[in-house]
Amino acid sequence: MYKQISSTQNTTIKYILQLQEKSRNRKKEGKCILEGFRELSLAMEGNYTIETILFYPEICPQPHIQELIKKASNSPEYIEITKEVYQKIAYRSSTEGVLAIVHTKKHTLSNLQLSKNSPLILVAEAPEKPGNIGALLRTADAANVDAVLIANPKTDLYNPNIVRSSVGCVFTTQIATGSTSEIISFLKEKNIAIYCAALTASEPYHHQNFTKPSAIVVGTEATGLSDEWLSNSSQNIIIPMQGKIDSMNVSVAAAILIFEAKRQRNFEAF
Amino acid sequence: MYKQISSTQNTTIKYILQLQEKSRNRKKEGKCILEGFRELSLAMEGNYTIETILFYPEICPQPHIQELIKKASNSPEYIEITKEVYQKIAYRSSTEGVLAIVHTKKHTLSNLQLSKNSPLILVAEAPEKPGNIGALLRTADAANVDAVLIANPKTDLYNPNIVRSSVGCVFTTQIATGSTSEIISFLKEKNIAIYCAALTASEPYHHQNFTKPSAIVVGTEATGLSDEWLSNSSQNIIIPMQGKIDSMNVSVAAAILIFEAKRQRNFEAF
Repeated sequence: MYKQISSTQNTTIKYILQLQEKSRNRKKEGKCILEGFRELSLAMEGNYTIETILFYPEICPQPHIQELIKKASNSPEYIEITKEVYQKIAYRSSTEGVLAIVHTKKHTLSNLQLSKNSPLILVAEAPEKPGNIGALLRTADAANVDAVLIANPKTDLYNPNIVRSSVGCVFTTQIATGSTSEIISFLKEKNIAIYCAALTASEPYHHQNFTKPSAIVVGTEATGLSDEWLSNSSQNIIIPMQGKIDSMNVSVAAAILIFEAKRQRNFEAF
Repeated sequence: MYKQISSTQNTTIKYILQLQEKSRNRKKEGKCILEGFRELSLAMEGNYTIETILFYPEICPQPHIQELIKKASNSPEYIEITKEVYQKIAYRSSTEGVLAIVHTKKHTLSNLQLSKNSPLILVAEAPEKPGNIGALLRTADAANVDAVLIANPKTDLYNPNIVRSSVGCVFTTQIATGSTSEIISFLKEKNIAIYCAALTASEPYHHQNFTKPSAIVVGTEATGLSDEWLSNSSQNIIIPMQGKIDSMNVSVAAAILIFEAKRQRNFEAF
């Protein structure tokens, strides 16, 4: 038998709402909330510590829970919740009947493990919209890049909208955050070429050699990259645009650049 | 002096709200609402007939209006509105103080003008999310493709969220809608190779020759392309994915494929 919660006033439920609402609470507690099977499964795959799994049995069938139990590297607490409680804490419109309290990780540059030969890294400076960050992480996942580095982050990685829009990739992609200066130093120290996506003084992206150790750096749609990035760039690159508007969604631009690198590498590890 | 409207109960204002709200009303009237300078400017560039321009002078300065007047190919009616009226009809959070009633166009296959040598076309089957359609149109604009074809459309093109997320590209990109059968016939008749993005029985996209007349066809993230597309495909293609999740955002996938075609064409007209 599982522990049961039927009151929305329960302290665990209040705690979950606090973690969902505020970045500050997530940082203070070192925990976040995730929702959905795939997300939970990816968090387990990414060796996250799952503290508590809450499920609403009408939607989330027992065999699914059993399957999750097998995957977990630690022993989470399981709590059965009522419909009312589930509706109070469910964040998404498509319901799968399962949420979890998960311990977050520290995302430091020094923890990164890069491939020995020719790492491929995606860097985003000060991305603001959680949906864009989620999209970048999905692209990074599909391309199996070595790491995603977020320079001068504006939001914490465990924002519910990032968890959702990344479809859980936030838990399996190697991510580090740091100041722009720290990340530039890190890349230079490792002899990784810095390709900054920029509209001025740039060479076409498809004339570059991305088979060498490469970091592809994108800024925000509104302001682009900071001078610090542009002046420390090995090469500024541009995607030729031939339309009526001269901008691209940052996640689309990043995907075009990353997959050109993948193409040059013939989708193999280098 | 311009005509002025200060009541939210004014019939023109009610008419605008109706056009914003319902696809059915836009279709019946053959009109839509747009908002913002860039959007209005692009609609003029796309030779749309602008019926009425409404502006709130506190936000939208006179010189801007004068500039728009010069660009318009027809003679729109100009209406000055009050703050209250503007707030009632403004759709976006970032305010530029200008909206317009615009005549929509019919988007038929027979009206398309394709480049003589080697057209490049983007086809999307039954895209549902307006934000995805807007993103596809932005990519199509940046790549200056010959046309975007929407097969079995689920939403009208002048949905306010498409206008907004396309940043106005919906007014300058050549777009046609039709059933999947109609579009397949059209492409075959013109000897345009059909490349269907699919997860099964597919060849890697970067081994294809996109310099010949090419249509790149994408389905929805949830269900992919219909059998009708897959069985009429010249070649099914796949973007190799090496991550934990085996899906990609449709606009990201389309951008990777379209820009590989552009790269092969060296960003020149063929």
